Order: sequence, then C-alpha cells, then structure tokens
Amino acid sequence: MSQYSIAVLAGDGIGPEVMQEANKVLDAVEKKFNVTLNRTAYPVGGYAIDTEGEALPSKTLLGCEQADAILFGSIGGPKWDTLPLEQRPERAALLTLRSHFDLFSNLRPARIYPGLESLSPLREDIAKSGVDVLVVRELTSGIYFGQPKGREGEGEEEFAYDTMRYSKREIRRIAIAAFEAAQKRRGKVTSVDKANVLVTSRLWREIAEEVAKDYPDVELDHIYIDNATMQIMKNPAQFDVMLCSNLFGDIVSDECAMMTGSMGLLPSASMNEDGFGLYEPAGGSAPDIAGQGIANPIAQILSAAMMLRFSMNLNDAADAIEKAVVATLEAGVLTGELLPADKRSQAASTSQVGDEIVKQL
Amino acid sequence: MSQYSIAVLAGDGIGPEVMQEANKVLDAVEKKFNVTLNRTAYPVGGYAIDTEGEALPSKTLLGCEQADAILFGSIGGPKWDTLPLEQRPERAALLTLRSHFDLFSNLRPARIYPGLESLSPLREDIAKSGVDVLVVRELTSGIYFGQPKGREGEGEEEFAYDTMRYSKREIRRIAIAAFEAAQKRRGKVTSVDKANVLVTSRLWREIAEEVAKDYPDVELDHIYIDNATMQIMKNPAQFDVMLCSNLFGDIVSDECAMMTGSMGLLPSASMNEDGFGLYEPAGGSAPDIAGQGIANPIAQILSAAMMLRFSMNLNDAADAIEKAVVATLEAGVLTGELLPADKRSQAASTSQVGDEIVKQL
Ligand SMILES: CC(C)[C@H](C(=O)O)[C@@H](O)C(=O)O
Ligand SMILES: CC(C)[C@H](C(=O)O)[C@@H](O)C(=O)O
Repeated sequence: MSQYSIAVLAGDGIGPEVMQEANKVLDAVEKKFNVTLNRTAYPVGGYAIDTEGEALPSKTLLGCEQADAILFGSIGGPKWDTLPLEQRPERAALLTLRSHFDLFSNLRPARIYPGLESLSPLREDIAKSGVDVLVVRELTSGIYFGQPKGREGEGEEEFAYDTMRYSKREIRRIAIAAFEAAQKRRGKVTSVDKANVLVTSRLWREIAEEVAKDYPDVELDHIYIDNATMQIMKNPAQFDVMLCSNLFGDIVSDECAMMTGSMGLLPSASMNEDGFGLYEPAGGSAPDIAGQGIANPIAQILSAAMMLRFSMNLNDAADAIEKAVVATLEAGVLTGELLPADKRSQAASTSQVGDEIVKQL
Repeated sequence: MSQYSIAVLAGDGIGPEVMQEANKVLDAVEKKFNVTLNRTAYPVGGYAIDTEGEALPSKTLLGCEQADAILFGSIGGPKWDTLPLEQRPERAALLTLRSHFDLFSNLRPARIYPGLESLSPLREDIAKSGVDVLVVRELTSGIYFGQPKGREGEGEEEFAYDTMRYSKREIRRIAIAAFEAAQKRRGKVTSVDKANVLVTSRLWREIAEEVAKDYPDVELDHIYIDNATMQIMKNPAQFDVMLCSNLFGDIVSDECAMMTGSMGLLPSASMNEDGFGLYEPAGGSAPDIAGQGIANPIAQILSAAMMLRFSMNLNDAADAIEKAVVATLEAGVLTGELLPADKRSQAASTSQVGDEIVKQL
C-alpha cells in the first residue's frame, strides 16, 4: 500500500475549519483508494506568531521538508497587520515557503460552474459563455524577489526601488509548465507581458516563442497586461492557459478568481521541479467570518485534490474528489455565499458541505 | 480676446477622422466663447515614420514646445509593430513626449453614462450602481523609466531586468494631484499599491499618508493591486479617485475603461506642473475600423474639453462641451458600437456625431 506524508498548515482565520473538512475527505480517500495519507499539523502564520513567536517556526519548515507535500490553509489578519513587513504572516511564511522550496510553478484554475453563473459580477451572456481559465504564474522570481531592493538618498529626493528580473532558465521552466498544461486542456497559451515597455517582458516573449516550437499542437499568443485585464472582463472564454510572470500573475489570477464570483471554490497549486508542492485555496483567511462554521470548504478540498494529482500522482482519487464536488454543487448543498440573499437561510454549514462531498465520494 | 495655441497631433488609425470632429467643436467654441484657438497640425506616430522617417520628428517636438497644449489622436498599428521597440510609435512618440514635458499627472475618468449601462460587461445591478471613477496615474517614473534596465549574462542564465523606482518628490506631487481632484469630487482617494511585497509601494503608502494630512476633508484608504482588479469588477461604485503608480495605473485605468463598456467615450489628460498638457482618447488607434467614418469622436472631443479646462482654464467652454456630449448621447445620436447589434443600421457616422455636438453647443 502506498504511503505519503503531508504537512498540514491550517493557519489563521477560516483556515482551521475548512482544513477539517479537507481532512475528512482525505480520510475517505484513504479507505476508498487503499492508500495511507499520513498527516502532521504544524503551526503557521499569525497563529504561529502568537504561539511560537514567528510566522514560520523552524519545526514547521522541517516538517514540510520531510513531507511529500504541504496542504496549506490561509494566513494573516488585521491582528498582525501592524507588524514590520518582514515579520508579517504573508511574507515571513508564504513567500519564504515559496522560495525555500523553489515553488516556481503556480497553477490557479478559475471556472464558472454551470448553474452558478449568476454569482459572477459579469453580464449574464459573458458568464454563460463557458469560462474555464488556468492561470500559470511564475512564483519565485520577478519583482517579488529581484535584487537590489531598498531605499536611498535624502530629503525629497530619497527614493525606493525594486528590481524586476528574469533569467532565460526561469522563464523557460514556467513556459514549459504552461504548454504542458495547455496540451491537456484546449491547446492555447496566452502569454501576458508588457513588452512595449519592459526589457524583462521582451525576454519573456522571446523564450515563450522558443518553447512554443516544441509544442506544435499548442497555439501561442501574446497580450499586454493592461489589455489582459480588459479582455478578462469582456470575453474571458477566449482564454485557456494564461502564462504570467509573478506580479502579472498575481493580478490576472485574482481578477480571474473574482470573475467567477465564487472564490470559495478555487484551489491553487505551487510546485517545484521535483513534484513537491504547496496546495492552498485562492481566497484569503476571511477573518470576518472565521469560527462561525459558514466558510466554504470546497477550495480547500479541491486544493487537496490537486495535491493528490500533482505531488502523489493519485489521479483517480483526484478525479473522484473533483466529481464529488460537482455532484455536491449540483445537489444544491451550498454555503451561504453561493446562494441568493433570500435563500441564505437554507445554507449548508462548512461541515455539512464536507460531509456531502464525503458521501458523494 | 484670449489666444491659445494648440499642437494637433492626429496620428494613425482613427486619429485623423476623430480629430476632424474635435476641430469642428473647437471652431464652435471659438465663436461662442470669443476666444482664439490657433491650431497647427504636426505628424506623429506611424504616419510620421512613413513620411519623415521617425515617430516624433523634431519639428513636431518643436511645435509642441511652442504650444499651450497638445491635442493628441492615437498612434500605432500592425504596420509598425515589427520595428525595433525603441522606434515604434508608442515608445518613440508617446513615452518621449511624456518624459520630455514631464507630464507626470495622468487623469483618466471612467464613468458609466445613464442609459448606456447595457454596454458594460458587468452585471446589470453593478453597472447601474453609479460608477464614476477617476484614475490618477503617475506617468513619468516608476518601472517605465527607472534605470538600470537591460540584459546581462550568458546561456540559460542570461537575464533581463527593469527597475521600479520612485522618489518622495515624485510620489508627493502625484498624490497631491489625486487629493486635489478628490476635493472637487466625492472626497475619497484609494491608493493602489503592493506594499506587502514592494519597497517602492511602502514609500508610496508613507507619502500618501503624509499628503492626506493636508486634506482633512478627503478620506484615504489603501488597496493592493491584486485586490483592486477584483473590486473594480465587484463593486466599482466604491471608488472615487484611484491613486496609482505608472504600471498599476496603466492596468487599473484600462480595466476601469473596459468596465464602462464604452471606450470611445473616455478622454484623458497628461499634465505637468506648469499646466501644460497632452490630451488624448483612452482608446487606441483602432486600425481595423479606421477610414470608414464609423469611429466614435466623443473621446477625442472630451479630451479637447479637458484641454480647455486644465491648460487654458476655460472652464465654461469645457462645461459646455461636456453638456453637449451628454445631450447628444441622450438624443440617441450614437455611433454603432454604442448600439445593440440589431440597431446598428441606425448608427450615426463619426461626422454626424460631431455635428450634433456642435449643434447642442
Ligand atoms: C500575500 C501576497 C504576498 C501574495 C502574492 O502577492 O503573491 C498573494 O496575493 C497571493 O497571490 O498569493
Ligand atoms: C502604449 C503604452 C506604452 C502606454 C502605456 O502603457 O503607458 C499605453 O498603454 C497607455 O496606457 O497610454
């Protein structure tokens, strides 16, 4: 029987309660697919700051190093927003994990599920046009990590600076990830850049073109980031895979997520070249609704499915979870934010949704 | 009688035909407001490349230097897209003009006009919520112009880099522009940054807070760029003035423009500290519809109104043009892209719209 070990980092806000449901589903997967998924919980984020004095304690990092994958909840909240930037949960934990494990390949799917179109902020005809985008975001380089970064000078001429930077190697590996994904989808990659202004973007375009030659069955086109934010609104169905640098991917993936109108449904994967990965919901820690048992656990559960698929190659189990989620949505077992205001009283709780998904499995 | 001189740079694509309508309106303003608006046309963009060998000939630059303002059409098109970046119309003409005249303050209003809500790609209830945003974008610094920029190294480790850079002075003057604008509007500034990642953004936030102290009647809040692109879709009516760096303003202003669903109505102003400015439509050169007499001239005409207001202090004339435009929209004299598909046969031509605005004046 195959065995895997998973570092479970539930974090802050709704993290712990949605993680509980993901664990239920993973328990069910163990039985149904005859596999052992050993899970160990570690503190992270604001909770770790409060209990251990830092957002990413060394025992957490060590636990992640020993695991096959990290299942991540969400971190941060107003309580820790006044800390110096370097100590805040997002930077100290999330950005550190990304760069420590070289998790350069971030996959963020965004689709509008049939029947849930009315949640989209887009016009009905656009929401119903068949929206299913995969944003492939470079996650360990670009302006997030580029050096130098700092502040210099004095008085009004004091200035701050950041460096956007990409090597051919860094661009090539994320481009390959995008083309590989497109081959399994609808065969189209749209590369997002600002090549009319940025030197980095010109290199990006050059390498995307080079990689495209190895994928004759995949179509490549290029779009400027400003135009991309427009086209996502006007005609999102035109996109299959969107290939983005770190900063542009941050922007594009969030706009795509919002366009679906159902952030609570969207998972994400962040992987390195060895198949190790961190899997987390696209939404935030939502401190305003934490602890009430009303948060949607589906993004966390679908993140677990991505983990089974990409880090453990358990494709059948991943497929089964994804099908059970669709069945649950179709059965109308929905948390409040997915329901029209006048039907919120019929909302299912966090754990009812988790139970239904287990049942559908 | 007051006299002003205007450098008219019509450019490429639909530029010349919409500029003709703006000129009609300015002719009418001269008569009605007893003012002389001397206009001299100069070549720019792809047209100037074809006729003079460069996108911004020195006689054009000289003409602009001698004028009180630049009325700009639009430039670029597929014909010139294969030129080296530095010679292309956008960079060689537009970016050069911006930096040569230190046009740091870019104002891009985006509103959804009553009656035109169905053009918006947003859901009806959102489109009807009273959307009227002014994006104030820093235009002469940031990652567009920051040095160093370049390429280094060899093989797969060859890398490209750009520098995002802002001084306190640069941030302060654009923040002041935003607060001044908000005072005349609904008293709210939302500053867009990525302060959880960028050092530049932290300085940006710091200076925005400092400037806010001088405007106790204006409310300031901060939003991350990724969240901004979401909120523009979900609830654009929450925004009054959005204060943005160069790159973030490029993205945010285009998303706001698209959200209105009527790019052909949106003007923009780019000004320096002396009141000198370049005024241009928010949309592009639209080579696909150029020369057919179907382009919407309103963005160009409203750009002329902004010019009268900001560079010539002719507020009455600017008000009159803006009212005439609203009256023209209400009278239903609309170019095709503003009409539902089944009513396009009743579309007004470019010159009919110009004539109607003159009549309403
Ligand atoms: C928290 C922040 C640093 C992070 C990012 O910008 O990468 C977040 O927005 C995300 O997209 O995961
Ligand atoms: C053409 C391009 C360089 C320009 C920019 O990004 O500033 C354009 O997108 C704009 O917004 O005016």
